Amino acid sequence: MVGRAAYIAVDWGTTNRRAYAMTAGGAVVDSLQDDRGVLALTQDDYPDAIAALRDRFGVHSVVMAGMVGSTRGWREAPYIDAPATLQDLAAACLEVAPDVRIIPGIALRSGPRPDVMRGEEVQVLGAISTGAAPSTALFCQPGTHNKWIETVDGAITDFTTVMTGELFALIRSHGILAGMLDGPVADSDAFRDGLRRGREARNLAAALFEVRAGVLLARLAPWDAAAYASGIMIGADVGTRSDLGQRPVYLLAGGALATLYGVAITEASGRAVAVPDGSTTAGIHAIWSSRA
Amino acid sequence: MVGRAAYIAVDWGTTNRRAYAMTAGGAVVDSLQDDRGVLALTQDDYPDAIAALRDRFGVHSVVMAGMVGSTRGWREAPYIDAPATLQDLAAACLEVAPDVRIIPGIALRSGPRPDVMRGEEVQVLGAISTGAAPSTALFCQPGTHNKWIETVDGAITDFTTVMTGELFALIRSHGILAGMLDGPVADSDAFRDGLRRGREARNLAAALFEVRAGVLLARLAPWDAAAYASGIMIGADVGTRSDLGQRPVYLLAGGALATLYGVAITEASGRAVAVPDGSTTAGIHAIWSSRA
Repeated sequence: MVGRAAYIAVDWGTTNRRAYAMTAGGAVVDSLQDDRGVLALTQDDYPDAIAALRDRFGVHSVVMAGMVGSTRGWREAPYIDAPATLQDLAAACLEVAPDVRIIPGIALRSGPRPDVMRGEEVQVLGAISTGAAPSTALFCQPGTHNKWIETVDGAITDFTTVMTGELFALIRSHGILAGMLDGPVADSDAFRDGLRRGREARNLAAALFEVRAGVLLARLAPWDAAAYASGIMIGADVGTRSDLGQRPVYLLAGGALATLYGVAITEASGRAVAVPDGSTTAGIHAIWSSRA
Repeated sequence: MVGRAAYIAVDWGTTNRRAYAMTAGGAVVDSLQDDRGVLALTQDDYPDAIAALRDRFGVHSVVMAGMVGSTRGWREAPYIDAPATLQDLAAACLEVAPDVRIIPGIALRSGPRPDVMRGEEVQVLGAISTGAAPSTALFCQPGTHNKWIETVDGAITDFTTVMTGELFALIRSHGILAGMLDGPVADSDAFRDGLRRGREARNLAAALFEVRAGVLLARLAPWDAAAYASGIMIGADVGTRSDLGQRPVYLLAGGALATLYGVAITEASGRAVAVPDGSTTAGIHAIWSSRA
């Protein structure tokens, strides 16, 4: 019952790469995942990498999303401006080599606040294309950089990148809090206390020092410090949204981070709806189909 | 006209150490500064270090402030609770060895928010003791960790530690913004733009990504990125104070950081008053005098 592969879809990120052999109907018939992200390759490495994918999957056409289209990747696929739909992304793909296309990212270029995304747009619009989320919705995409993304009628209209995961990794590895954050980061009373503190905090840089003071003054158990600090940071992140009471948040993540953001959204009087996997390939497929 | 030294005052910090030969009248007759902060010493090193200071200055009595009294220092001088005056600090000094005393730090232990200081209290109360600041005032003490400190009638009543300097150092050395922040950090249009953005930002972790997006979209010159990022962080820090229009801020810092915070306070409709050097030795002297 497995169809023949028609093209290769690649989600080519900074650190990791996922490639899928796709049928003309949008089914995944084979896949690979490895650590050959753009940081592991030079520009000269890409033609061979594409040849290897073609050999591996036995199909020629390639459509790629993510950091492969950044200045650090193979070649820059210039951002298109929001509002942007799947059709806009399809029309602006960069043919970087014969039958190899890179989907561009999306930019907020002329508004009050600049922002950029590259890869996340395909997952969000893919979730809409499968019906996993409505065409007008608010999405949350946690990761090293969390993104809050708004869509209206199938177009990405606005988004905000929050460096929550990166800053947490920095304070956990370096600086005065580093030695205090070895405990587990999971949903717990300490995490929820941190959420409350983070939501109300005027400034993340002030709230974070309370982790150290709390441990020194025995108000915070050392074992709880990492969960509390994570709560502060995710609470401050979720606190950037004042509209959580008005509509659900479609949550594009799996595993522990999805759990933590789900709790954070619920504790902020919001409602999180988990979007199942498969949105990225669905988004790439919609773009491939509209160009085919 | 130089009097005879009566004791040694030491401001013993994490990275650096400043020692002063003090007269009974509070004048500095000799001093040294080196990099023998507490991170450079083990607990066993202190007796020899004190003996060397006594040899160097030819005087026996020693009074010390700062991280030397922390768990990372020689021995912990337990925090006393706010509100705390110079007299409270003098009464709680720890005699760690014959005629060698460590001034304790101050804690916010039982209020809504925990916080600690160790060393800064002596400088603030020293500024009041010399008349450089009134006994009821708001102080700002920028550094790796900025502190906002409130005094009432010569007692430290409240304070907030903000990890502004440390977080800026972390994002400048590590992570996705690191390569973008090599430009100068000084008062400039970019710095003031950053101040405005930081003051109004709901979340520092969101505002900081705009540095990257701004550079990628050519809205922010790469040369200006560090000053803009510094402005965001100092603006967010100053934005934690909602009372700047009501009273002056006594600024305890010198050099470039004092300039940046002075601009930030002024741009936030406040008024910064620079406190001249000498407050730390004045504070130690007041404590020495009240015990002598």
